[in-house]
Amino acid sequence: MEATVQLTYALDTFYFLVTGALVMWMAAGFAMLEAGLVRAKNTAEILTKNMALFAVASVMYMLVGYGLMYPAEGNGFLPSLDLGFMFGGDHAEADVAAGGINHSRMSDFFFQVVFVATAMSIVSGAVAERMKLWSFLLFAVVLTAFIYPIQGYWKWGGGWLQELGFNDFAGSGVVHLCGASAALAGVLLLGARKGKYGKDGSINAIPGANLPLATLGTFVLWLGWFGFNGGSQLALTGFENTNAVAAVFVNTNMAAAGGTLLGLVTARMLFGKADLTMALNGALAGLVAITAEPLTPSPLLATTIGAIGGLLVVFATVALDKLRIDDPVGAISVHGVVGMWGLMAVPLTNDEASFAAQAIGLGAILGWVFTTSLIVWLIIRLTFGLRVTEDEEYAGVDLSECGLEAYPEFVGSRRPT
Amino acid sequence: MEATVQLTYALDTFYFLVTGALVMWMAAGFAMLEAGLVRAKNTAEILTKNMALFAVASVMYMLVGYGLMYPAEGNGFLPSLDLGFMFGGDHAEADVAAGGINHSRMSDFFFQVVFVATAMSIVSGAVAERMKLWSFLLFAVVLTAFIYPIQGYWKWGGGWLQELGFNDFAGSGVVHLCGASAALAGVLLLGARKGKYGKDGSINAIPGANLPLATLGTFVLWLGWFGFNGGSQLALTGFENTNAVAAVFVNTNMAAAGGTLLGLVTARMLFGKADLTMALNGALAGLVAITAEPLTPSPLLATTIGAIGGLLVVFATVALDKLRIDDPVGAISVHGVVGMWGLMAVPLTNDEASFAAQAIGLGAILGWVFTTSLIVWLIIRLTFGLRVTEDEEYAGVDLSECGLEAYPEFVGSRRPT
Amino acid sequence: MEATVQLTYALDTFYFLVTGALVMWMAAGFAMLEAGLVRAKNTAEILTKNMALFAVASVMYMLVGYGLMYPAEGNGFLPSLDLGFMFGGDHAEADVAAGGINHSRMSDFFFQVVFVATAMSIVSGAVAERMKLWSFLLFAVVLTAFIYPIQGYWKWGGGWLQELGFNDFAGSGVVHLCGASAALAGVLLLGARKGKYGKDGSINAIPGANLPLATLGTFVLWLGWFGFNGGSQLALTGFENTNAVAAVFVNTNMAAAGGTLLGLVTARMLFGKADLTMALNGALAGLVAITAEPLTPSPLLATTIGAIGGLLVVFATVALDKLRIDDPVGAISVHGVVGMWGLMAVPLTNDEASFAAQAIGLGAILGWVFTTSLIVWLIIRLTFGLRVTEDEEYAGVDLSECGLEAYPEFVGSRRPT
Repeated sequence: MEATVQLTYALDTFYFLVTGALVMWMAAGFAMLEAGLVRAKNTAEILTKNMALFAVASVMYMLVGYGLMYPAEGNGFLPSLDLGFMFGGDHAEADVAAGGINHSRMSDFFFQVVFVATAMSIVSGAVAERMKLWSFLLFAVVLTAFIYPIQGYWKWGGGWLQELGFNDFAGSGVVHLCGASAALAGVLLLGARKGKYGKDGSINAIPGANLPLATLGTFVLWLGWFGFNGGSQLALTGFENTNAVAAVFVNTNMAAAGGTLLGLVTARMLFGKADLTMALNGALAGLVAITAEPLTPSPLLATTIGAIGGLLVVFATVALDKLRIDDPVGAISVHGVVGMWGLMAVPLTNDEASFAAQAIGLGAILGWVFTTSLIVWLIIRLTFGLRVTEDEEYAGVDLSECGLEAYPEFVGSRRPT
Repeated sequence: MEATVQLTYALDTFYFLVTGALVMWMAAGFAMLEAGLVRAKNTAEILTKNMALFAVASVMYMLVGYGLMYPAEGNGFLPSLDLGFMFGGDHAEADVAAGGINHSRMSDFFFQVVFVATAMSIVSGAVAERMKLWSFLLFAVVLTAFIYPIQGYWKWGGGWLQELGFNDFAGSGVVHLCGASAALAGVLLLGARKGKYGKDGSINAIPGANLPLATLGTFVLWLGWFGFNGGSQLALTGFENTNAVAAVFVNTNMAAAGGTLLGLVTARMLFGKADLTMALNGALAGLVAITAEPLTPSPLLATTIGAIGGLLVVFATVALDKLRIDDPVGAISVHGVVGMWGLMAVPLTNDEASFAAQAIGLGAILGWVFTTSLIVWLIIRLTFGLRVTEDEEYAGVDLSECGLEAYPEFVGSRRPT
Repeated sequence: MEATVQLTYALDTFYFLVTGALVMWMAAGFAMLEAGLVRAKNTAEILTKNMALFAVASVMYMLVGYGLMYPAEGNGFLPSLDLGFMFGGDHAEADVAAGGINHSRMSDFFFQVVFVATAMSIVSGAVAERMKLWSFLLFAVVLTAFIYPIQGYWKWGGGWLQELGFNDFAGSGVVHLCGASAALAGVLLLGARKGKYGKDGSINAIPGANLPLATLGTFVLWLGWFGFNGGSQLALTGFENTNAVAAVFVNTNMAAAGGTLLGLVTARMLFGKADLTMALNGALAGLVAITAEPLTPSPLLATTIGAIGGLLVVFATVALDKLRIDDPVGAISVHGVVGMWGLMAVPLTNDEASFAAQAIGLGAILGWVFTTSLIVWLIIRLTFGLRVTEDEEYAGVDLSECGLEAYPEFVGSRRPT
């Protein structure tokens, strides 16, 4: 094989592995973010869920999901099923030498598997503090094996949304709206946390127990997002690719910056204070917003798209509370509402995108994931049950589900119900 | 374009993006370090500042700073202003093919923008626990748009310090001394925290609330510094460049190790105990010390240069307290005092450097940044005010500035004033 | 030099630096894991140990260890000693141009030095909450300068274990079993923590103070392990190497996932609860298990090998407690017991390995490290002493060793003995 072909294969594979590792790191970000935003008594359980869901996603996507999402065949809506990945194997030397293959199959899987884990991580935050641990993991099995890969196939596997001209560079829809739609279905069946909404219509803030942890999680996600968006160009080598990857890094950072600032300023205007949690969700909103199209905007436009995300997330959080949809970490607002904004913003800077195709893709993902998730959550509710008992919820799910406490020495005098 | 030129362009751009991402990660390190070293009641506010200052730095450097620091023209002292970066655009294929360009313009911006954020992160720690949030952010706008870029132009933009033969590989001066000088000006105008210095001349230790967080921050900074120094070779490809980048990684690690150990041993000798915070600041001091010249020392000399940094930081911390200059996290000692040591140590191992040029550069950066910062801080003090009220300081700035608490369930029985 | 040779040298060196930086990051992972699993009163001290041991390892390996492990000469058992590394120097251009050298010597050191730090990090957790800080650091000097490098030479330096056909890709034995053997020797001489084992044969759980921190540490280690195993292919460029590195990344992730799930399920079956700490140690066990051979298994087999690690670690933890061997963080179970499993599992998927050679290597590492460590610990016990006084242990080693508290504002009403 020619040296330059080998070098390209090595470099582009390494690019996938490094950006994939950054996306894997986002699992830690979600874990810290969610652990920081729940109450102390529910912290160990949300950590257990985050560890376990990443493991479930890895195993199910290896067994089933990857083969479904990138099938040998398919009619555009339903893919064929290929279980071969679990047995390993990579490209043959002759095929790489012949050209057209820029990275190893294993590195491709590595990059993809961390995306499905991201989608699932979004769900855990929204259903926190009241859902049974094993019921949640059962749902994770179905989402990561079937629900996510099938809509992923529609777009990234070459299915009907790809044919239609739907644009979603790194997954404002395929990953973030997907996760949020599954979360919304779960939250609607699960109901709000006890004490969140009063019978008199009052809305009670339930503050997170550890904001440094939530801030750390946000920084981790910001860093990991460089891999999430930056790797989604799928190739580094070649003049156009190189410039594209670099532009994606810059725009990802600018959108996060814009979201942080407008989230913070909006909160200051609405609530009178520089609410840290709105700066955090603003940053994440900026990142979600730019994910559908981080390549074509200028840095200034990327900042603006992210900033609008930061604005939207504050109003969405307020609106969901008015609808009595209880999402302890704001995941539905960040990944759902702003994911939709990201999809619809693509045609503003990308001439090849159309609002119609974007709207159809948005509707298809939302419809598919919400409906199938609702059915799966419902089946779980009817069999194993979704919600812990009222006593367990009062005492905290750490004790009932995990048999331990996250901070056994800290909590005491000021412990809220 | 030749395949090897494309590969070089791809690899060197990727090297910038990866090392830049590591430097971005330092923002999380500063946030955790500072959040761990302040009291619980001021934690959410310092986190908000750290998130917001990174966003402000990103936006201002995109709008103004990058164009000032790397101008099309300039007389060596004052650069011309070019606002074109915000509209995007990268190298043309023909220019890259012609040779002499090894990385994309976007990746260059990405690597540079995280450096200005680092400089600004240094400030937030020194003024913690008593400065108004929005006043701080206003200062961040000016520093990242003007003060930092202009002195950056003097050295890295090809201005008069570069002409003079001033050496500062990765920014002991341009970044660390710059940040510390701005911080010192702010602290002098702001005054000490209530209760820090008694009227009888006593100095009261105010312990940080969360040392695991501070330790995590230090590890994050240690890791990120591989990008900070390692990326500052500006090219990876080419035999000399490759060896240089590898040597920089090794020396950066050795200096941090030397600083950790001598910081710890010095604290043990002076205070009788293995003071963790001095190990942390020792590590950071080692890193700051080697930053001006991480290439020419042998590993043994790099360890020594870092170790002297670790020694200096302990004495500097004690000395600042005697001068009643209140720096809650030791930022002025770590980045200022040791930054000066780093600059003056360059001629010890680099034959092309001179003590005279280093001293001039040191004085120029210190003079410019301190003076301009003092003026800006003063204007802010006269208009919006710099300091929270005494009641707000007593209750903690988290409540008055952010309207929430960082650890609502933990703090209670042992809460200090 | 040909452009493709330069590119290979640059890319493979960068691959070493990036994977090495990921391994350095594991130091933060161990620090957070251990800080989260000890009691609040012993947290600052374990953090100090973790910072300092990394610095000690860096310095001693630079001075002595690297030269011993990769000697110019040696008889297979005893290496010659070469102190030249500390003075620097890298490959000459002509030697690289001649071929056969794919990465810089400095990058090689960087990748190796973070491994010895990993081995030492394993020790600190097992001896936590009762060992004197400076005695521990004295042991670190000996382990990182002599004990580790000599057995490292046997395998990776081309010594007798390498000749024998012993397989250990990234160090289930050379790093993890090594660290666990040194820890076991220390724990046996040190004894259990006060209150851990009752005179009536009871075993008292001593819960860790901060499980989010322990979870963060596990995620950090998971991420860092991609560098640990992925870099151990030692070359990225070249078709076979590229595919190998990618397969190692995938298998490392799958083994961690398998370990997480079976650790969690086993704990659920044995204890009735989804014990978060067993999910964490299960993940680490999966990672240790795959480390001896992350290349030859299919993804499915890698998952299985990791899952068996997760199963073993739960039973090993229970068994060690029955033997009254007190290991606060489970390091001996995770790195020792599962390290042995990893070594013995190699022949299951690698045709070139034999159970006999694996058993000999296992015995040699365990025997050498345990015996020499026992002698060193014993000498330290007879001179400086190993254990803090009973009063110091009761009050917490943070106060007696470090003179400060990790969480001065949090702990109070529920503080356990």
